[in-house]
Amino acid sequence: MTSPSPARDPRPTTIASIAEELGVSVTTVSKVLNGRPDVAPDTRERVEAGLARHQYRRRSKRRTLKGQIDLVFHELNSMWSMEIIRGVDAVAAAARIEVVLSQLKGAHRPPEEWLDGVLDHRPLGVLFVMSSPSQSQQQKLRRAQVPFVVVDTDGEIAESVPVVGSNNWDGGLLATRHLLELGHRRIAVVSGPKDVMCSRARVAGFRVAHDEAGLTVDPALVRYGNFYVDAGYKHAMDLLQRPDRPTAIFAGSDLQALGVLRAARRLGLDVPGDLSVVGYDNVPVAGWVEPALTTVGQPLCDMATVATQMLLDLARGVEPATSRIDLANELVVRESTAPPGSRARSRLPRPADDHRS
Amino acid sequence: MTSPSPARDPRPTTIASIAEELGVSVTTVSKVLNGRPDVAPDTRERVEAGLARHQYRRRSKRRTLKGQIDLVFHELNSMWSMEIIRGVDAVAAAARIEVVLSQLKGAHRPPEEWLDGVLDHRPLGVLFVMSSPSQSQQQKLRRAQVPFVVVDTDGEIAESVPVVGSNNWDGGLLATRHLLELGHRRIAVVSGPKDVMCSRARVAGFRVAHDEAGLTVDPALVRYGNFYVDAGYKHAMDLLQRPDRPTAIFAGSDLQALGVLRAARRLGLDVPGDLSVVGYDNVPVAGWVEPALTTVGQPLCDMATVATQMLLDLARGVEPATSRIDLANELVVRESTAPPGSRARSRLPRPADDHRS
Repeated sequence: MTSPSPARDPRPTTIASIAEELGVSVTTVSKVLNGRPDVAPDTRERVEAGLARHQYRRRSKRRTLKGQIDLVFHELNSMWSMEIIRGVDAVAAAARIEVVLSQLKGAHRPPEEWLDGVLDHRPLGVLFVMSSPSQSQQQKLRRAQVPFVVVDTDGEIAESVPVVGSNNWDGGLLATRHLLELGHRRIAVVSGPKDVMCSRARVAGFRVAHDEAGLTVDPALVRYGNFYVDAGYKHAMDLLQRPDRPTAIFAGSDLQALGVLRAARRLGLDVPGDLSVVGYDNVPVAGWVEPALTTVGQPLCDMATVATQMLLDLARGVEPATSRIDLANELVVRESTAPPGSRARSRLPRPADDHRS
Repeated sequence: MTSPSPARDPRPTTIASIAEELGVSVTTVSKVLNGRPDVAPDTRERVEAGLARHQYRRRSKRRTLKGQIDLVFHELNSMWSMEIIRGVDAVAAAARIEVVLSQLKGAHRPPEEWLDGVLDHRPLGVLFVMSSPSQSQQQKLRRAQVPFVVVDTDGEIAESVPVVGSNNWDGGLLATRHLLELGHRRIAVVSGPKDVMCSRARVAGFRVAHDEAGLTVDPALVRYGNFYVDAGYKHAMDLLQRPDRPTAIFAGSDLQALGVLRAARRLGLDVPGDLSVVGYDNVPVAGWVEPALTTVGQPLCDMATVATQMLLDLARGVEPATSRIDLANELVVRESTAPPGSRARSRLPRPADDHRS
């Protein structure tokens, strides 16, 4: 308001609108905003110019917010949740906004009394992670002018709610194409729970990749389980003891993939020599284990960053240009995938293997 | 105050005083309070009776606190921090207290402006994790009647500050005794940074275990590094390529231990057949990897529970019986340790090994 500008776009500037204008992803804009190193120099320059042109930073600074945001997890699980917390903290700390943490002990819907607490302390906004308010809770939050955004990787939230997610179908496609390109023809999928949309979306991507390659999916190789180590272990023990065992398993999470690695070792199978394994999420541990996991990287930290930025925009009265942003997944190729039957060609030939040939 | 009781102990009841009276550990009392399953039935009964006798629960409920506590991490690192958050959340959620999360980006001392924010929003108390306020910040917090407790595994906090920690010397002793009992005689230690007290304390425990066994420690086998995967990998690569390589490595964290596993695999060494590995912390991933890690379990979640309980006690005006509580570590034996040279006797003989004999 202080200086007149010749031609002002009446639409409020958001990171989504800047991304659209520049033809880059929302993730990229978010990365530049957060000073992350993994952006190509010329892209960074373009984004910074775009941000400067829209006075994005300056505007944010001028309209200083004060208060706290509520971060509501459906549950606190080790690595996944921490990635989200990091992303929220990066934006909130920069804006000097407090983050109040709570969890719903596995429920995806806050209990009714939860809202009383919120209306009592009036946060700037509420960020739901893998949880969302009921219709009546949404109405009450709106009436109280408490904005909310959902971080969700499931994909089953009503359109009326602003959501930051990722494209699970795409994730299933990426992982399966990678395995097919390596030459695998018997590929199993161990997805998340069947009643969760993201699990079905990933299996759909898995099927389409097979269709593209002119292959049919053996129904016996399609499994569903929880997202933890035990489900990966249990299904892999079963799959790998079949006479027609798969040469590759695409897991529903990195933790499931750890369960698959465990089953393979128990059965004396080398990964990736005898079995290729693809995880999902790319939580830090994926890169720490041996062999390091090839995995579908969900941009959890970036999703949280974008959602928090969206929430603070809403708190400043800026409506988002779109109510659903899906960030792109990327395949992170490490050591757990290789062409089928490549044990002899394995990255690190074991001395003992020499005696076999 | 509502009903007269014939003989009242003038000393305020705390979990520490109940633990002392019953001759059990503070951890045990905390576990019973949190409804955790891993307490022997008769112990649970005794503790519940003790809690009931002191009307511990009822008193807590009667003096309802309202507000928030600040949880200040020196940094948010994946699994370690999440264990702490879980412990804090368990107590705070039960008491319907909000938890405000912040981190100091690696600093162990909050910046001066941090205090302004605290004095501004007046939390019920502040819980510092691996960080602590300066003398002048302590004075200001006391003047403002904002109590604080430190969760610390380093062991270098002034006596005037209430601290919940764990006994690192003991941890070093436990791990080393275990390896000596298995028959190892060349044991290396890769501890945390040398300027951190806990690293030195663990190495001291390592030395004492050697003394007990009448063995001298080879100085070349005592290493210090950061707590992450890379330090474990780097030191292990160096140690394991020595002509007189150690048969066991005691690492300073589970992440370091993952780095040691990685180095062993790169060098074609079997764990535990050719090399035993002990981690530290017992974060969830320790049980998920192959081989599952033998590790010194730091009761991170329980430490956070006890510290939060202490903080809420202080907020209610109950002074703790003692200003420093060290919870006991326990050795968790899994698959990464075995007698030296036990490759042939290894849990899962590899088919390829048969060709060697």
